[in-house]
Amino acid sequence: MSYEKLKETFSTLYNLNHLGSIAYVDQAVMMPVGANDARSKAMGTLSKITHEMITDSTVGEQLKAAEDDDLSGWDAANLSCMKRRYEAATLLPSDFVAKQTEITMNCEHLWRQLRHENDWKQFQPALESVLELAIEEADIKAQHYGLSPYNALLDGYEEGLSTERVDTIFGTVKPFLIDLIPTVLEKQEKEFKSFDFDEVFSIEDQKSLGLEIMGHIGFDFDHGRLDVSHHPFCGGVPEDVRITTRYNTDEFGSSIMGVIHETGHAMYEQNLPKDYLDQPVGHPRGMLIHESQSLIMEMQACRSREFTSFLLPKLKERWTLKGLDTDEDLEMLYLKVKPSYIRVDADELTYPLHIMMRYEIEKKLISREMTVADIPEAWESYMQEFFGLSTKKNGDYDYADGCMQDPHWAFGGFGYFPTYSLGAMAAAQLFAKAKEENSDCLSTIANGDFIALNSWLNKNLRNLGSSKTYDEILTDATGSDLDPQYFMTHITKRYLG
Amino acid sequence: MSYEKLKETFSTLYNLNHLGSIAYVDQAVMMPVGANDARSKAMGTLSKITHEMITDSTVGEQLKAAEDDDLSGWDAANLSCMKRRYEAATLLPSDFVAKQTEITMNCEHLWRQLRHENDWKQFQPALESVLELAIEEADIKAQHYGLSPYNALLDGYEEGLSTERVDTIFGTVKPFLIDLIPTVLEKQEKEFKSFDFDEVFSIEDQKSLGLEIMGHIGFDFDHGRLDVSHHPFCGGVPEDVRITTRYNTDEFGSSIMGVIHETGHAMYEQNLPKDYLDQPVGHPRGMLIHESQSLIMEMQACRSREFTSFLLPKLKERWTLKGLDTDEDLEMLYLKVKPSYIRVDADELTYPLHIMMRYEIEKKLISREMTVADIPEAWESYMQEFFGLSTKKNGDYDYADGCMQDPHWAFGGFGYFPTYSLGAMAAAQLFAKAKEENSDCLSTIANGDFIALNSWLNKNLRNLGSSKTYDEILTDATGSDLDPQYFMTHITKRYLG
Repeated sequence: MSYEKLKETFSTLYNLNHLGSIAYVDQAVMMPVGANDARSKAMGTLSKITHEMITDSTVGEQLKAAEDDDLSGWDAANLSCMKRRYEAATLLPSDFVAKQTEITMNCEHLWRQLRHENDWKQFQPALESVLELAIEEADIKAQHYGLSPYNALLDGYEEGLSTERVDTIFGTVKPFLIDLIPTVLEKQEKEFKSFDFDEVFSIEDQKSLGLEIMGHIGFDFDHGRLDVSHHPFCGGVPEDVRITTRYNTDEFGSSIMGVIHETGHAMYEQNLPKDYLDQPVGHPRGMLIHESQSLIMEMQACRSREFTSFLLPKLKERWTLKGLDTDEDLEMLYLKVKPSYIRVDADELTYPLHIMMRYEIEKKLISREMTVADIPEAWESYMQEFFGLSTKKNGDYDYADGCMQDPHWAFGGFGYFPTYSLGAMAAAQLFAKAKEENSDCLSTIANGDFIALNSWLNKNLRNLGSSKTYDEILTDATGSDLDPQYFMTHITKRYLG
Repeated sequence: MSYEKLKETFSTLYNLNHLGSIAYVDQAVMMPVGANDARSKAMGTLSKITHEMITDSTVGEQLKAAEDDDLSGWDAANLSCMKRRYEAATLLPSDFVAKQTEITMNCEHLWRQLRHENDWKQFQPALESVLELAIEEADIKAQHYGLSPYNALLDGYEEGLSTERVDTIFGTVKPFLIDLIPTVLEKQEKEFKSFDFDEVFSIEDQKSLGLEIMGHIGFDFDHGRLDVSHHPFCGGVPEDVRITTRYNTDEFGSSIMGVIHETGHAMYEQNLPKDYLDQPVGHPRGMLIHESQSLIMEMQACRSREFTSFLLPKLKERWTLKGLDTDEDLEMLYLKVKPSYIRVDADELTYPLHIMMRYEIEKKLISREMTVADIPEAWESYMQEFFGLSTKKNGDYDYADGCMQDPHWAFGGFGYFPTYSLGAMAAAQLFAKAKEENSDCLSTIANGDFIALNSWLNKNLRNLGSSKTYDEILTDATGSDLDPQYFMTHITKRYLG
């Protein structure tokens, strides 16, 4: 049967990509700097080999022949995922893919060094090369799928997502937030305590707390682990999910919330459909859905009053936390809104604005309305408009905490950013429905028990892999497609309620 | 040019094997247990893909055609290394390789459990299957290369090595050691202090010392790192050499000497010929030469009086070490001889005897003069003869610390053991010559300066890769082929001098 042969090929690809995923984690967590060239070449070769495998003409023939294989259910969905992968891969010549892998890996590696040195000058040409390849890729895909170039990139991160959709949603949420934030700031100014913890938050203590919370959320330590990297991420493979965080001994909040965020991603990976892990249909849906899973933990479940009441004694076991004594106090810490420079440290209200400015910029980069050289100025102007902040320091830009703060563009991830905020909206929608169907989804979290929530998410989302589109998953789980109203209701209730 | 095409193929193989090497390190250092199945599948797929690549018929054709390419120097040597790899890969039918992989992996897996349970009965049949396949492999190779079966296996670990050679060398060294050891024991009994350090050797302190010594030896931390694993090893790739150790807070000696040993291996890898790293000729020579590089550091350079005088203040900075106050004291600790059961814990004098008994046994196993069932009795009789020790405990053998202590036979590594002791002898020979040519090779070690020694080793050995055989390397570097007299002179001077 042609389908069975295809399954073998995709299983082989899965196994080879396992090695690439682990090497990627190793690069971020373990690898010494001097190994970068050799690693980039190795990853480039892997991309080339796997690209050659998937674009082999026999795969195309088998895909055609498999249409007669009378498949249904998971297998039918798997075949259509296979087709999509084949199509996406055959579009790009393998030399292009190898070159792109090498150039983006190199740029991401440069970024790690140069961000540290605030060196935009050296970074700019590397990023320009990456952008050129991204535009080339976008154009090829756009022509084939009959999409605009930027839509073709969006579609690569979440199948079916479009600027039209994103523009509509962001167009609703942006004025809502810009209107809301000053009100919330004023309210918090009056009602919120500020804290000044004069103590050292040791890495050991933060790590032990992170591991403890991961265990409560349900992370399977037989199939994953927690490490440290410069930029936190969730990587590895479903059978071995590697999440990372970074520690700052001046405070405990961002590492803990970072761990919770990545644990949300990890729970998705660890609960993908076991029987189809090595097949395209068993892979996670796109980044919008993936991000909904990190944010449903970080923003919905673990910034709830239920979770803060569970967390507080664990914090007080470890640290003095002068002045922080009640659930309300902890909530003040975690719900504090403050316009700031760094996306990953942003609060729930300002975060979407960080995304929207990146979205606006990258759309223009791909359409060539803007060049890489224009980024710092555009960045400054958005920061002023959205947050009233300047990225200038002593006459020059602070690139490190400005337009060089994220690795996404360096690794060629244009079209990726919007999925973060759309994921936040999907998370609000999913959590609202989960609570409605089973109030335990929220209430048991007060005891550090995530069983009800996990069970709902496993059934309605994680176990589905890629068998449905993001819109189908949301519609089947909640009764409506992605609707920012849930997010706005949630925000209003949490910050003004 | 056919040769250029071959270079591309071998470079691709190198890049793919990079990922396998890193995944192997990850498995030993980082991987959670539950990931084992997925990782095994991934590694199996990589082996299959690379085996298919190297045995592709076009490679055979190109190798023939490349004979007309008029190559010389490194390229000629590279072509002959390529041929050897191609031949070795094509000799064994892929069904045989698959079966052998499955059976040896299973036996090594069983060994891990059964050694712990001292269960020889269950282990024996598994080892019998492994031996049968090893004999089959030896026969196939023997027929092709016109060697005896055991020589064919030896040749797989160090090209050109033969039993005739090993028998001659071991035949000289064995009586020498058996004669010498009682004299040394008696001398040490009279002259050596014994130590009882009543303190905790923290992992942090041991690690910082290990890193400091690695730096002095010349380890390039931009291209490698030190981690922890259950069994110490040197892995990774020449551009990113990963060495590991294990820490025991009851003592400091074995982790430090372990680090020095693996650093010796690493220095070889890090100083292979840069322009040929991705080609077979740029790979390290066989296990004999590799082991000479770990032992020249561990046994020659770093058990010298020069090194102990350099090391002592570093130890005293960290620990009290009651009673250990002089260079002589430290030497007593590091040169203490004690016949014992466990090869990996053995001292410099008894270690070769551990190897010789394994060598005698495995030769007879491959020639069918002995069966797996005969091993425990043979083991007992060698232990009695060489060390005056019995492996019997309460009427039965202590297999765990006897013939089941090593994984080598379980993973089918017949022919591997002799390279350990031959490596020790090569190390003595190389070090004697290095000192003779430049006395700084030893004297500057007193200041923690390994530059002269590294420079000599780089020029005479490390930078040569696989461009010469082990015998050519030794002859060109020292003026004679492998000669155990250097080892015996070194031992006599160190232990009776």
